[in-house]
Amino acid sequence: MAGPTALLSESLDAIARDIDSLFDALLPPAEAGLLAGAMRHAAIGGGKRLRPLLLGATAAMFGVNRTQALRAGVAIEAVHAYSLVHDDLPCMDDDALRHGKPTVHKAFGEAMAVLVGDALQAFAFEVLSDQATSGDPFVRAELVAVLARAAGAGGMVGGQALDIAAEGAMLDLRAITRLQQLKTGALLGAAVEMGAVLGKVPPEGRTHLRGFARDIGLAFQIADDLLDAQGDEAKAGKALRKDAGAGKATFVGLMGAERAREQAQMLTSQAVAHLSSHGQEADVLRELARYIVERDH
Amino acid sequence: MAGPTALLSESLDAIARDIDSLFDALLPPAEAGLLAGAMRHAAIGGGKRLRPLLLGATAAMFGVNRTQALRAGVAIEAVHAYSLVHDDLPCMDDDALRHGKPTVHKAFGEAMAVLVGDALQAFAFEVLSDQATSGDPFVRAELVAVLARAAGAGGMVGGQALDIAAEGAMLDLRAITRLQQLKTGALLGAAVEMGAVLGKVPPEGRTHLRGFARDIGLAFQIADDLLDAQGDEAKAGKALRKDAGAGKATFVGLMGAERAREQAQMLTSQAVAHLSSHGQEADVLRELARYIVERDH
Repeated sequence: MAGPTALLSESLDAIARDIDSLFDALLPPAEAGLLAGAMRHAAIGGGKRLRPLLLGATAAMFGVNRTQALRAGVAIEAVHAYSLVHDDLPCMDDDALRHGKPTVHKAFGEAMAVLVGDALQAFAFEVLSDQATSGDPFVRAELVAVLARAAGAGGMVGGQALDIAAEGAMLDLRAITRLQQLKTGALLGAAVEMGAVLGKVPPEGRTHLRGFARDIGLAFQIADDLLDAQGDEAKAGKALRKDAGAGKATFVGLMGAERAREQAQMLTSQAVAHLSSHGQEADVLRELARYIVERDH
Repeated sequence: MAGPTALLSESLDAIARDIDSLFDALLPPAEAGLLAGAMRHAAIGGGKRLRPLLLGATAAMFGVNRTQALRAGVAIEAVHAYSLVHDDLPCMDDDALRHGKPTVHKAFGEAMAVLVGDALQAFAFEVLSDQATSGDPFVRAELVAVLARAAGAGGMVGGQALDIAAEGAMLDLRAITRLQQLKTGALLGAAVEMGAVLGKVPPEGRTHLRGFARDIGLAFQIADDLLDAQGDEAKAGKALRKDAGAGKATFVGLMGAERAREQAQMLTSQAVAHLSSHGQEADVLRELARYIVERDH
């Protein structure tokens, strides 16, 4: 599998560094107590920060200042981080390792892990509604609306609930596509949309960006299934081969690895085609679309 | 103990009815699936709706239209409801009964209860950021800011975390006051503040309202401790006498029932005194302050 290009590699490094330092600046200080320390454990120093990168790359296309895009990026990443903390709970996926570190409930106990997730979600909306994120209240309110919709019952959490309800049942390709579009796709779509909101692109000017996001969202999930089936646990920093063990329906299980890989490539090309009206300002998004299916962790 | 006056009683009936019907209209329909049904179980048909009533009574003082106040009331009640769902989890208080019904994890399983809480929190911010809540984007963004701050690590969830960290330790009066100001007081304060935000009262004009909210917040918690120690389980619709059993520090345990009752009365008078610049438009708030310490469930 190919690594990221120089342009993308630089963007990935920069976003990981900047999101970590902004989390560090905005989260309550570790001295504030156990909850603050546990929130920091969950949010800082882990993950590829794909959602903030997508958000920032989209915002940059429309000339948005980087500080504002980073604040919105921290908010969406806080929602992603909280969802992982709750996903890892014993009553959900019961995972012990995340980003190469003990999961929050392993390190701080189950009750604290529930609260860390809850507090990170509130933190996301606190950051978005702060004037430092945008001086324009319409933009702040719209950022909140886009993220809340994508995070809730009609998006991410709705997808997780379908996942739980489906346990043991064998989903077909259509059902699993729907599930993954909610569980993963909604938040990736929100990342692109929030970048456009910051850039004050009107809703009708965001259609092609939504199409881009939908296609890479699905490609991302197929790539995740491929990594779960064939990847390297040390690189992933978490347990793999869990889906097959749990009898979960996956794209790889339903289509076979080869067809799944083809499908992911096809979706990537389709995603890139949505950007044809843009010039080189969309290059990071294009490379990100390719990286998402070619990454090895 | 005295019941509510006619004016307050009417307000309590109206808010319970209106919040239920607005939840019914705004939550995803039960047919949407298990998550939607479980969200409805958690949010509809239970509780006194004190926070929406506080919010609505404050908003009415400043001439806000009732529909907008109800939408903001549904949002704050969604946060309150989600906190109860998570509080009741086996890893937290492990309760089986809430508002006379099985708790969400008893009825739908633990994983679903985690997700119901998560989705209700997102729902709250989705409702607030919607143009139907206020046509003024500044008001929408400020409502989100006030609720997010009160709900998160610096408010309600922070108080719950202190509560968990304090288990087994014996808190003194100062520590328990701080804990309760976060755990219960922050959200009651947000209710009053959100009413004032809808009424476009500038922050400097809200100081006395914040004082009112702080005092009734503490009075509310002392009254809760008294009810836990001396109340009637059938009326409460939940298990009582849990605090003493769990060895938890309470106002009643630290001060004795008689002094605790006096303290609650004193705080109520102090709360009402904060409203002296208002005429009869503040009567619902005044009566609510008295009711909060005199209620029998």
